[in-house]
Amino acid sequence: MHTTLEGTAKTVLIGSEVPFVVIGERINPSGKRNLAESLRRGDMSLVRQEALAQANAGAHIIDVNVTAEGVDEEAILPLAVQTVAEAVDIPICIDTADFRALAESLDRCPGTPLVNSVTGEADSLQTVLPLVKERGCAVIGLCVDEDGVPADAGKRLEISQRMIRAAEEIGISKASVIIDPLATTIGADGGAGITTLLAIRAIAEELGVNTTLGGSNISFGLPERSLINRSFLPMLIEAGLTSAIVDPLDVEIRRTIAAADLLLGRDEYAEKFLQRFRNGW
Amino acid sequence: MHTTLEGTAKTVLIGSEVPFVVIGERINPSGKRNLAESLRRGDMSLVRQEALAQANAGAHIIDVNVTAEGVDEEAILPLAVQTVAEAVDIPICIDTADFRALAESLDRCPGTPLVNSVTGEADSLQTVLPLVKERGCAVIGLCVDEDGVPADAGKRLEISQRMIRAAEEIGISKASVIIDPLATTIGADGGAGITTLLAIRAIAEELGVNTTLGGSNISFGLPERSLINRSFLPMLIEAGLTSAIVDPLDVEIRRTIAAADLLLGRDEYAEKFLQRFRNGW
Repeated sequence: MHTTLEGTAKTVLIGSEVPFVVIGERINPSGKRNLAESLRRGDMSLVRQEALAQANAGAHIIDVNVTAEGVDEEAILPLAVQTVAEAVDIPICIDTADFRALAESLDRCPGTPLVNSVTGEADSLQTVLPLVKERGCAVIGLCVDEDGVPADAGKRLEISQRMIRAAEEIGISKASVIIDPLATTIGADGGAGITTLLAIRAIAEELGVNTTLGGSNISFGLPERSLINRSFLPMLIEAGLTSAIVDPLDVEIRRTIAAADLLLGRDEYAEKFLQRFRNGW
Repeated sequence: MHTTLEGTAKTVLIGSEVPFVVIGERINPSGKRNLAESLRRGDMSLVRQEALAQANAGAHIIDVNVTAEGVDEEAILPLAVQTVAEAVDIPICIDTADFRALAESLDRCPGTPLVNSVTGEADSLQTVLPLVKERGCAVIGLCVDEDGVPADAGKRLEISQRMIRAAEEIGISKASVIIDPLATTIGADGGAGITTLLAIRAIAEELGVNTTLGGSNISFGLPERSLINRSFLPMLIEAGLTSAIVDPLDVEIRRTIAAADLLLGRDEYAEKFLQRFRNGW
């Protein structure tokens, strides 16, 4: 099953038979003081810079998140989305929990963007999905509901089913729903990795939909986060993950994804791998 | 299911609930002119040095292979095995296709070594397995038979079943048989990685036995072999691989295995991971 997203000039397919899709995570002020400060001032220069840098590094989609203390999301998110759409020609992932900021941003976003996100909570399903349907875009469904993030994979599968059913009921095809099974931190729970892997495998096999994951939460609080993240990625991709929200400027992450695509038969004659190798990744 | 091996002082368990087991590959003259030359002279200094270096780097088992043009295996392999057994206290993996060299080497090897290997060929099963039974050791079963290495995972599973049945018929428990599903090169066959992963998963789930793999054949002929190998390892371990024959002096391989154990819940409170991090891996 393919999810199709469109930027101003580029179309991106997500699916198990095409190369793994990288959603660039860098336009997010969490933990980034400079970006937060510039967003508070309404200054879009860093947003533009990060969009270009990620696209140049091979990101397929750019995530745009402006959530930070003192940032007026309803004014700033649409501006940031418009800035990214003007800077790069690839699809955009609009990342907010603020419904009005989302609606405004969709108005300014060309192509077929990805909405990040709806959850399994009734409120979220009832507000976000009709907007996704109306605008004909795609949506990330987070495996969380009124009871929080389930500790086991089976419950995450259930929430996924519920989100897909709700989408289908209002006419959104399941190809337009990308499930994020979530990963809690391995430092706090030794079973966190296995739970996420089981959830991805179950969602891919039983529901057949695409999946995505924030690539770094698993390592929170530990040293060598990039090592942990890039060791987790091949497992996730092998289990069925078809996209991830990661830092495309981390060369080791890029190299690992190129190797994973090669190893899983998505890079005939190692063509892409060799090309990236020759170009210094 | 646990496979238990013993060195002069250390016991090693292989299994899906214990940390991944590293079999050090460096005592092998293939592609190593100095080692080949010293083996031809019967000089054991490099063998001793490589055994110590690998044990210090955290290898759990030392593979000993002396096969090279001009090396008299029946004389040299037993000497090399004895040298390693005197140098380190961990189990030994005796790696030869020469039956008499194997029998002689087992005579000189203390503890419970691993025999590398038997194949699915009738000749091999009929000669190697009785020796394994008589000496009470364990054996690696290679998924190859009279027709070569099967191109599909199902046939590799069949050969595994045949080898295990032959072992059980003469009283070797299946806990003492470790299957090597083999990996062909991804540069020549884009499906090579998937076939090996499918075979490992099938062998682990349907037969419940331990598995091992030479960690570097997959990348033969390509640049960035260490990158490809260490991106494959997390997939293999997640699919059920419980040991591998790799270079323990490759720090990136060591780091990847530590991260994989952490991610798969075999390192409670990240204790080993943090210890290795503090000790500079």
